[in-house]
Amino acid sequence: MITSSANQKVKQVVQWQTKARERRSAGVFLTEGFKMFEEAPEEAIREVYLSQEALARADSQPILRKKLDRVGFETVSDELFAKMSDTRTPQGILCVMKQPHYDLDKLLDVPTPLLVVLEKLQDPGNLGTIVRTGEGAGVTGIIMSCQTVDIFNPKVIRATMGSIFRVPFLYVDNLKDAILKMQERGIHTYAAHLAGKKYYDSFSFREGTAFLIGNEGNGLSRETSELAGEYLKIPMEGKVESLNAAIAASLLMYEAHRQRSYAGSN
Amino acid sequence: MITSSANQKVKQVVQWQTKARERRSAGVFLTEGFKMFEEAPEEAIREVYLSQEALARADSQPILRKKLDRVGFETVSDELFAKMSDTRTPQGILCVMKQPHYDLDKLLDVPTPLLVVLEKLQDPGNLGTIVRTGEGAGVTGIIMSCQTVDIFNPKVIRATMGSIFRVPFLYVDNLKDAILKMQERGIHTYAAHLAGKKYYDSFSFREGTAFLIGNEGNGLSRETSELAGEYLKIPMEGKVESLNAAIAASLLMYEAHRQRSYAGSN
Repeated sequence: MITSSANQKVKQVVQWQTKARERRSAGVFLTEGFKMFEEAPEEAIREVYLSQEALARADSQPILRKKLDRVGFETVSDELFAKMSDTRTPQGILCVMKQPHYDLDKLLDVPTPLLVVLEKLQDPGNLGTIVRTGEGAGVTGIIMSCQTVDIFNPKVIRATMGSIFRVPFLYVDNLKDAILKMQERGIHTYAAHLAGKKYYDSFSFREGTAFLIGNEGNGLSRETSELAGEYLKIPMEGKVESLNAAIAASLLMYEAHRQRSYAGSN
Repeated sequence: MITSSANQKVKQVVQWQTKARERRSAGVFLTEGFKMFEEAPEEAIREVYLSQEALARADSQPILRKKLDRVGFETVSDELFAKMSDTRTPQGILCVMKQPHYDLDKLLDVPTPLLVVLEKLQDPGNLGTIVRTGEGAGVTGIIMSCQTVDIFNPKVIRATMGSIFRVPFLYVDNLKDAILKMQERGIHTYAAHLAGKKYYDSFSFREGTAFLIGNEGNGLSRETSELAGEYLKIPMEGKVESLNAAIAASLLMYEAHRQRSYAGSN
């Protein structure tokens, strides 16, 4: 059992919790909690750390215990685990995962793409929620500008509730090129925009679709909005000028899902 | 100009930033930022504090400046303002507002109620987002169990983006009584629930409607779900078991809005 905070592995984990650059150069990210461990693909698990307390709990759950034995784990004292954890009330299980890598061509090369394109999104909770809701709505990929918050940030990972393992995503250096590439392939690109005249649910999203979502404070940049094939509008009552980015994205994704999966017409 | 952190008013504001009990006993809440000040109803503004820097900015904006002169304000040094503020990059304007009080009978006594009922919601961002999206969707009121996070928490206020001034809300000691009262008045009560068999958009929300939304981790309590008139289901692809509470609430509120305002049929 590891008990010293001077342990090299422990020091490394603490760095990975806070430093995006360190995670990137090692090609890893961290997940915490039993649900995340259960959903983690075994081939992507690099290391697992369990607190004493969590080990005792795991011993009473045969499926969990077997997965732990297959992938291997190290035990750390409860006190030390608290230092390694990013949460206030740690569940006592932390995984070091291999960062997945997706390819733009593969993301675009699916039967009927349903993409979300994020420009400079800053709030970890918003990004994580978009990944989670995206899986629920059947999104086929999430494409982000480089200035978007790091998807491997522990707060993002937590908010994805496991969807990080299943929704393909990609950071691109040049968002414009990516959008043009989508359009070349016949994917329709929509921006929620004040200049939009038609409500979002009056469009058909049954063909290849990409929703462009901008930064929380400033929305989409002018350059990116101008690239959008169509503007759509989300109706708003009262004095509301805009919706939270994750909410706007979710309404659009679920409208696409509705049209594609079960709505007879629209 | 106030420059000392020993100033009684300053000390009071600092307490109100962090202590729900102090806010409650004084009957106030705090807002920060120019947008919030602009949207604040004048009759509810008790005190306004401006940093030197913000005062200089306000001087170049006539409408803003006039509102400041009408309601009155005190200037504080930039350093001191940073201590009074709940944000990392304060805009330099803080209002002490009178807490509004709404009445259950009045909340229920509107033409076609569209209510959101929140049980033990814990995340300030989720509550604020529900208030903001609720205004956008034309919600007529938000009813919360006592164990719900304090709506006057600065993080909630910020996330409402001003909707806190316009959406009626109420904490109730007994959620069951409130739900029964809704039902007596013919308001249909819906719970998003795993036992739901029909998708949410196959119900009609054109009559009085209340959506029951539960705690982030545990959903609705069994007692409250059993009270619901109908269960509805939000479809979810992949391995998603539930959506974030604010996302689920938003999809439901906007479906009601769609049906009520412009969708010809459903």
